[in-house]
Amino acid sequence: MLAFEMSEYQNRIQRTKRRMEEAGLEVLLITDPANMNYLSGYDGWSFYVDQMVVVMIDEEHPLWIGRKMDANGAKATTWLYQDNIISYTDDYVHSTIKHPMDFVAEILRQIGQGNRVIGVEMGAYYFTALAFEHLKKGLPNAVWKDATLLVNHVRMIKSDREVAYIKNAARLVELGMKKAIHSIGEGVRECDVVADIYKSLISGTPEFGGDYPAIVPMLPSGENTCTPHLTWTDKKYQNNDLVIIELAGCYKRYHCPMARTVSIGPQSEKVNDVAKVVVEGLNEALSFVKPGVTCEEVENIWRKTIARHGVIKDSRIGYSMGLNYPPDWGEHTASLRQGDQTALKSNMTFHMIPGIWYDNFGIEISESFRVTETGSEILADMPRKLITATNLFALGNDAV
Amino acid sequence: MLAFEMSEYQNRIQRTKRRMEEAGLEVLLITDPANMNYLSGYDGWSFYVDQMVVVMIDEEHPLWIGRKMDANGAKATTWLYQDNIISYTDDYVHSTIKHPMDFVAEILRQIGQGNRVIGVEMGAYYFTALAFEHLKKGLPNAVWKDATLLVNHVRMIKSDREVAYIKNAARLVELGMKKAIHSIGEGVRECDVVADIYKSLISGTPEFGGDYPAIVPMLPSGENTCTPHLTWTDKKYQNNDLVIIELAGCYKRYHCPMARTVSIGPQSEKVNDVAKVVVEGLNEALSFVKPGVTCEEVENIWRKTIARHGVIKDSRIGYSMGLNYPPDWGEHTASLRQGDQTALKSNMTFHMIPGIWYDNFGIEISESFRVTETGSEILADMPRKLITATNLFALGNDAV
Repeated sequence: MLAFEMSEYQNRIQRTKRRMEEAGLEVLLITDPANMNYLSGYDGWSFYVDQMVVVMIDEEHPLWIGRKMDANGAKATTWLYQDNIISYTDDYVHSTIKHPMDFVAEILRQIGQGNRVIGVEMGAYYFTALAFEHLKKGLPNAVWKDATLLVNHVRMIKSDREVAYIKNAARLVELGMKKAIHSIGEGVRECDVVADIYKSLISGTPEFGGDYPAIVPMLPSGENTCTPHLTWTDKKYQNNDLVIIELAGCYKRYHCPMARTVSIGPQSEKVNDVAKVVVEGLNEALSFVKPGVTCEEVENIWRKTIARHGVIKDSRIGYSMGLNYPPDWGEHTASLRQGDQTALKSNMTFHMIPGIWYDNFGIEISESFRVTETGSEILADMPRKLITATNLFALGNDAV
Repeated sequence: MLAFEMSEYQNRIQRTKRRMEEAGLEVLLITDPANMNYLSGYDGWSFYVDQMVVVMIDEEHPLWIGRKMDANGAKATTWLYQDNIISYTDDYVHSTIKHPMDFVAEILRQIGQGNRVIGVEMGAYYFTALAFEHLKKGLPNAVWKDATLLVNHVRMIKSDREVAYIKNAARLVELGMKKAIHSIGEGVRECDVVADIYKSLISGTPEFGGDYPAIVPMLPSGENTCTPHLTWTDKKYQNNDLVIIELAGCYKRYHCPMARTVSIGPQSEKVNDVAKVVVEGLNEALSFVKPGVTCEEVENIWRKTIARHGVIKDSRIGYSMGLNYPPDWGEHTASLRQGDQTALKSNMTFHMIPGIWYDNFGIEISESFRVTETGSEILADMPRKLITATNLFALGNDAV
C-alpha cells in the first residue's frame, strides 16, 4: 500500500534529520498531515483529531501517535514498525476533561524524550494553541522551538516518482476542466457543473482514479468573480456570465491545480483586454522560469509586463505546491512575490496563478509548472486564454 | 445571499454575548469557520489563511478581519456593515516575516480593545499555536481566556430554519447512499463509486443542489473495514467484500451524516451476527432518546444491549452535529459516551454512529436524529441493516 519505495522514505527522514541538526532539534513533532504522510506514508481522514509523527534524532524509526480507532490505518498505510504505532483511547477525543497532548507528553516522558529540545510546527493548521499549552504543561523540562515549515522545505524538490504522481494529477485536472467548460452554459445550475467536475476528477482515467483535492472546486460567477474563494450555489448561469474555475486534480495526495475563466456569451472589451494582459504576463513570467532565478524575479517579470498595460496587482502570483491535505494544496514555503528570494531549483513545482480582481469582475488563468534543468515544463495541457463555454444544449435545459 | 433572517443572526449574537458575560469576556475572537458563519453568515474557502469574526460585548456589530482578497466575499456573504470588514494585505499570507495576527493585534489596539479580557478559541482547528503567540505579543496588556466551544454550545439547539436545512441535507445523503449501494459491485473501482456519490450529493434534487460536506466520503472495504477513516483507492471490489460507507449530505453548510455497511455477495455468520447486534443496539438507543435524558444514559442503553450478545465497544457512539467546515461535521460539544452528562433538549441534532471494528472487519450503521418534544425524529430514510449491493451489472464491467 506504500506510495513510495522504502529507500525514498528513508531519504526523506535523513534530510529531515539534517535540518533538525541545523536547527538544534533533538525531537520533532510532526502534526501537519502532509508532513506526516511525507515521512511515514500515513494517509487517512483523521486530522480532525490530534495525531503526530515523532522523529527523534538518534532513533532510526519514527513513532506514530494518534487515536486508537486510527491505529489500524497507521499500520496499513505506513512503513513504521507496528510497535511504533501508539494510540490513545477514545475518551481523549473532543473531551473537555483531558487532551490527547497529555497522552503524548506522557509517552515522550516515558521514553526519555521529555527533557530534550523539541520542535513543533507552531504554524501548522491542526496544531492548535490548546495542543501546545497541554504539551508545555505535560513536559515542563523540554526546550521548545518553532519548527514550522521545516519538513515543508524538505518537500520542495520532488523526486521523479513524485513528479510522476503530479503528472497523473495533471491528467485529472485536464479531465475536470474540460468537463467544466463543456458543462457550463446559460440556464445550467452551478451545482450541476461541480457534480460533473467531481465525477471527472475522481473517476479519472481507465488506468487510474483520482483522490480528493485539498480544496473543493471554486467557481464564482458573474459579479462574484471578484471574490476568489466563494464556492458554488444552485443558482443558474445567465447569458454573459463570466465564470472563474479553480480546481486541482489529485493523485495519491499530489496536486496539479489550474484556473481558467470561462465566458458564457460575449464579454465587454474590458474583460477581454484584461484576459489578454493576464495571458501575456503569464507567458512572460513562465518563459523566464529556470533554475537559479528567484521567486521575486519571476514575479517582477509579470509585474513589468502588466504595468505596460496599466494593470497593477498587489497579491502574490503563485506558490510551491504538491502533496497536501485540506484546507490547502500550497506548500507554504516559497511564493512568487516581491521579497521572496527563494532560488528555483530543478524539480520544484509551482502553481502560477496571477488572478486579477476588479470591483465587478475578475480573471484567473493559471498554470502549474515544474522547474526543469533548463527552464520549465507546463504540467497540464489546456488553452491559455479566456475560454468560451461550449455547452450548446444548456439553454432551457432544466434536467438534473 | 444570507441563509437566515437578520433577526436570527441577532439572536445568535445576543446568546453569544450572554455566554461571554457568564465567562467574564469583553471581546471574543472567533476563528472557527463554522462559528464565523453562524454569527456573521461568512462563507468561503478561505480558512487556510488567518481570519476571524470579533464580537465586542458593548458593540452591536461584530468585525470581520481577513485577507484583502476575501473582503469582497465577506461583503457578499455577511450581514455586517461594510465598514466593519477589515482586511490585511497579501504580504501577510504564508509569510515568515510577518503574521496576520500582528495586523489583528494592531487593529484591536487602535479601536481600544487591546487591554480587555479577550476570549480565543484555543482548541479550534485553524487557531494555531503560532497565531496565539503573535496575538499575545501584539497585545501584552490583554487578559486572555480560553473560549473554545463557547459559540459551539450556542449552536447546539437548532432553529426551525436550521432544522429545515438539515432535512434538505438528509434528502441529499439519501441520494448519495442509494447511489453508492447501486454502484458498488464486484469488479467496480472504489473511485468510480465515489465519483457517482459526489455527483448525487452535489447535483441534489431539481429543487436544490448540495454543498461540499466537511468530510469526504469514507468507504473502506474488505479487511480495511477495520480502519474507519481510510478514503478510497482505484482498486476493484471483489466478491464477498464488505464495504463501509460513511458520508453526509450538506446544504448551506448544514450536514446530515449517515453510515451503512454493504456486502458484495454472502458474508460469514459472524459478520451477519455483528450487523444484527449493531442494529439492535442502535434501535434500542434511538428509542430511548427524548428531552431530559443525558448523553451517557443513551450510550448506556447501547452498551447494555450489545453486552447481552457479548459485544463490547470502547469508543463513543455519536456526537452533536450540524453546521460545519472541513475537517469535521461534528460540533465537538456533546458526545454519546460514558461521562457526558449533557441533557438532551428539543431541536438538538446528533449523529449516532455505533461502529464496531474487529481485527479483520468492521460494521457501521448509523442514523442522524433530531430530538423532538417527546422523543426523536430520524432525519434520513434508509433501511437500517446490512445491505446487499445491487449492482447486477458490475462483474466484469471495466467501463469508466
